[in-house]
Amino acid sequence: MQNRQQPSGLPIHKYAPYQSVLPVDLPDRTWPTKSITHAPRWCAVDLRDGNQALIDPMSPERKRIMFDLLVRMGFKEIEVGFPSASQTDFDFVRSLIEDDLIPDDVTIQVLTQSRESLIARTYESITGAKRAIVHFYNSTSALQREVVFRTDVAGVKEIALQGARWCKQYEATVPGTEIFYEYSPESYTGTELETALEICNAVLDELQPTPERQVIINLPATVEMATPNVYADSIEWMHRRLAHRENVLLSLHPHNDRGTAVAAAELGYLAGADRIEGCLFGNGERTGNVDLVALGINLLTQGIDPQLDFSDLDEIKRTAEYCNQLKVHERSPWAGDLVYTAFSGSHQDAIKKGFEAMDARAAAEGVGVDDLVWAVPYLPVDPKDLGRSYEAVIRVNSQSGKGGVAYLLKTDHKLDLPRKLQIEFSGVVQAKTDAEGGEVTSEQIWEIFQDEYLPAAVADEKWGRFELLSTRTASDMTGEVRLDATLRDGEAIDGVTATGNGPIAAFLSIMQEEGISIRLFDYVEHALSAGGDALAASYVELEVDGRTLWGVGIDADISTASLKAVVSAVNRAIRLEAPDRELVEA
Amino acid sequence: MQNRQQPSGLPIHKYAPYQSVLPVDLPDRTWPTKSITHAPRWCAVDLRDGNQALIDPMSPERKRIMFDLLVRMGFKEIEVGFPSASQTDFDFVRSLIEDDLIPDDVTIQVLTQSRESLIARTYESITGAKRAIVHFYNSTSALQREVVFRTDVAGVKEIALQGARWCKQYEATVPGTEIFYEYSPESYTGTELETALEICNAVLDELQPTPERQVIINLPATVEMATPNVYADSIEWMHRRLAHRENVLLSLHPHNDRGTAVAAAELGYLAGADRIEGCLFGNGERTGNVDLVALGINLLTQGIDPQLDFSDLDEIKRTAEYCNQLKVHERSPWAGDLVYTAFSGSHQDAIKKGFEAMDARAAAEGVGVDDLVWAVPYLPVDPKDLGRSYEAVIRVNSQSGKGGVAYLLKTDHKLDLPRKLQIEFSGVVQAKTDAEGGEVTSEQIWEIFQDEYLPAAVADEKWGRFELLSTRTASDMTGEVRLDATLRDGEAIDGVTATGNGPIAAFLSIMQEEGISIRLFDYVEHALSAGGDALAASYVELEVDGRTLWGVGIDADISTASLKAVVSAVNRAIRLEAPDRELVEA
Repeated sequence: MQNRQQPSGLPIHKYAPYQSVLPVDLPDRTWPTKSITHAPRWCAVDLRDGNQALIDPMSPERKRIMFDLLVRMGFKEIEVGFPSASQTDFDFVRSLIEDDLIPDDVTIQVLTQSRESLIARTYESITGAKRAIVHFYNSTSALQREVVFRTDVAGVKEIALQGARWCKQYEATVPGTEIFYEYSPESYTGTELETALEICNAVLDELQPTPERQVIINLPATVEMATPNVYADSIEWMHRRLAHRENVLLSLHPHNDRGTAVAAAELGYLAGADRIEGCLFGNGERTGNVDLVALGINLLTQGIDPQLDFSDLDEIKRTAEYCNQLKVHERSPWAGDLVYTAFSGSHQDAIKKGFEAMDARAAAEGVGVDDLVWAVPYLPVDPKDLGRSYEAVIRVNSQSGKGGVAYLLKTDHKLDLPRKLQIEFSGVVQAKTDAEGGEVTSEQIWEIFQDEYLPAAVADEKWGRFELLSTRTASDMTGEVRLDATLRDGEAIDGVTATGNGPIAAFLSIMQEEGISIRLFDYVEHALSAGGDALAASYVELEVDGRTLWGVGIDADISTASLKAVVSAVNRAIRLEAPDRELVEA
Repeated sequence: MQNRQQPSGLPIHKYAPYQSVLPVDLPDRTWPTKSITHAPRWCAVDLRDGNQALIDPMSPERKRIMFDLLVRMGFKEIEVGFPSASQTDFDFVRSLIEDDLIPDDVTIQVLTQSRESLIARTYESITGAKRAIVHFYNSTSALQREVVFRTDVAGVKEIALQGARWCKQYEATVPGTEIFYEYSPESYTGTELETALEICNAVLDELQPTPERQVIINLPATVEMATPNVYADSIEWMHRRLAHRENVLLSLHPHNDRGTAVAAAELGYLAGADRIEGCLFGNGERTGNVDLVALGINLLTQGIDPQLDFSDLDEIKRTAEYCNQLKVHERSPWAGDLVYTAFSGSHQDAIKKGFEAMDARAAAEGVGVDDLVWAVPYLPVDPKDLGRSYEAVIRVNSQSGKGGVAYLLKTDHKLDLPRKLQIEFSGVVQAKTDAEGGEVTSEQIWEIFQDEYLPAAVADEKWGRFELLSTRTASDMTGEVRLDATLRDGEAIDGVTATGNGPIAAFLSIMQEEGISIRLFDYVEHALSAGGDALAASYVELEVDGRTLWGVGIDADISTASLKAVVSAVNRAIRLEAPDRELVEA
């Protein structure tokens, strides 16, 4: 079978194999024979490396929420910022200390470059803390020595050593704080191993670690440059040669440029490391830091306690998304929206049989299902252990043989439902199909959707207490809009009027007048196609008489579409209150 | 330094270490000593494994676009569907063949379960193709044998063998097609190695591969269950023992449950595999298949030709996003929006010096910069080689010392700009700051934004030909809205009237009447906070006299906000045409 692949034309001459530039030679490596048996020491760097890589860096409020999350999850070492480089970070560290927000068993870590003024400022920031890790670094790679620092190995070693001396010297400025050190030869993966070793050992000789005061040597894959086995080889090489090894905590800090940071962390940990720095969901510079959620739950699936609490993973995800203002991808390991989803019929069938077999075995052995070893095909972890509902997964997918509810509504009717509305509506479809059984066609889904959210086209079959018959709006650009509407309420037709800062606000007032308690949570609109004469769909999330639900309106007029969506939600709320009286005036 | 981590309370008793259940023992492994020297044979499974895992499976049109993309990139083996399981897939395969869309050097691959009726149907689907790979599979794992198939090893082996026999038998139905075979022991990573070997070797003995007609043995990590070195060990173990090895193409198909699929593919390839199946950007079941973009560009960075064309990666990304209706994450290796972005000042400084050093070296050596080996800190690949502009990266970030334009507008003014508008506006800010220099404060950004998109608060400083002074709308729910507006055009104030299916359509007609050629491309609205009395921001993308640009309107009335946004875009277009005449009536 002939290989027909052809040269791509990409400029391969511009790149050289990592091993030819920075060889790592360790033929007697031992890490591939080892297995992980316990959790590493974790250090979360979300508030520093993660934060500095955000389009929208965290506000003090978001920083505080992230810190609390990390503490709640069980992190005991948290890098809280780069206080000498950023006033925001400095203020945040001060607020943690002054507001007494750091639990006794949590150690904050602060990053600083190896420069005197920055080190002095760093100590200033941690004044009053019970304990802190001062993490100093300088870049050591061949490339940065040449183009950035224009110095040789002796030069960058002296930068590191001088940093260590300043660190010790400024300790005197924080007498009440127990200080530990971390040193990083930054751009380690671009540094010759002998050079990295020489610099780290010089720093260790200067700091003289003891059993009570171990020193962290952190070997970052500042840029991930080779397959993860090469990083592991380099870690085992360093692990064997580091001075004062018994009093050194060897730390990893992998980045994910090649998409192999999780592997690099795992193999590097097998190779002798003690500690791993990373971020939740792999946030961080460029492609991100190693994903601590993946690493931690990977341990759980091997029966190893990650010593981090992932029991409400959705809450962790929501919080991280809020703090980072970055979505966690649908396929992000263990956490993405789709990672417990089986769309294929044969997968769904095997999963169902796996559950049945576990139930049967538990019954036969007279134990609970949760006492058994988890064994369900295509589900490497019990979603329930992470706070995810298996029912929710099934629900979203039970109609999906031919494409899924959201897909069909979008393809056939151009409706792009907000995610929360998709979930609401898939529950509606589920309820109908559970009752009636069988496969659901696109036509049936559209009927269910219309019946649930839109007034029926046939006048006789109209449901819903309210209907909007006409609207007149007037605005003089003063910030107030007057809305005159003709409204059917049951059988009665009335003219109603209100003002508000916009038609929706005015219309909500009208509804209040009609005795409906109502609040607007969210609205989303989109055109059904390009062009000014296109239809618009409006989706509103309301609280109506204490119930939160969605309404949908479709109209060429975006303003009318929103008002119709409000009517839709109100009518639905009334119908849900009194399902058998839905055509009767309330 | 005491380790203060505590047990998490997670139910670790439910999970067992992989190596205790399915041991892989290969102390004399050789793969860790090897390096990758050439591209594997690729097989893209986007149209099958990728497609079946989508919320919105591809329409025939989107399938066709994906197929064309894969061909354009240089894939020579493409799994195009599971035609016996899906009429859509069957029809798609037929259309590829009947419309003669398969280039001579591309081989399509079709998946089928090892069942006679499905195999017969599969051959039916490929009738008339020049060449095809028939990929048959059955699940072999201990768990699936027990709970799904209720059979033993002999039973699943017989399913595989019978499948091989049917495949050979039905070859006669497609006399004009050159047939190759691929066999997958599905759920290989859940199968004891001896069992997987026994079944694969039985299938190989049945198929009798030859040099001209090699057989593909595909060993899928259907579920990724262990660190990637264990998968690599298992591949080397199989590689050494497969019968007819010289006529076998050993294929990998890693999934990404643990976040290590890229590593598993790379290490498995070192371990003796010949071929890798995966999807662009790691689409596929659950956490996805291995990411072929990451694997391919990883090779490029080592000076190895991936034999796939990534020279316009943004186009590949946009196409995949369209076909999959799933975004590629901002931090997706080599392709994400943020992966060439350096927000940190020290990184930006090092990058700048790296560029300068390369320029200087090229000048000194009398060669072009592209003749040199790429060496810029924090940028492991030249973005230009992938069709990304380095200038674009710098632009987005040059204001980002204190947080970035989009961040500041959102934090300080609650404006959530659409991505395309962010890019437009960052160019506006860039132009101002390049001219004036210095750091840009949030106040300055807000001033620039107001000056660019919003009418100034001070009447004397008003710019823009048009201004909306009042609106009246009337709708009787007939699908037509009447808009009466008072419009300032230069110094003249006039009442204008038009109808349309909504106020925007009516207003666009009014603009046309005023001699402005105008088309609506996109509009987005959002509330500035919750509650019916909140302000709304409206963003419209228009083509005005041949120029595409955005307008912004802010108003309590969502309808008025949209009309203001149209005015904003029109005024901007006029100002851009005649910048020095902006206050003059056109």
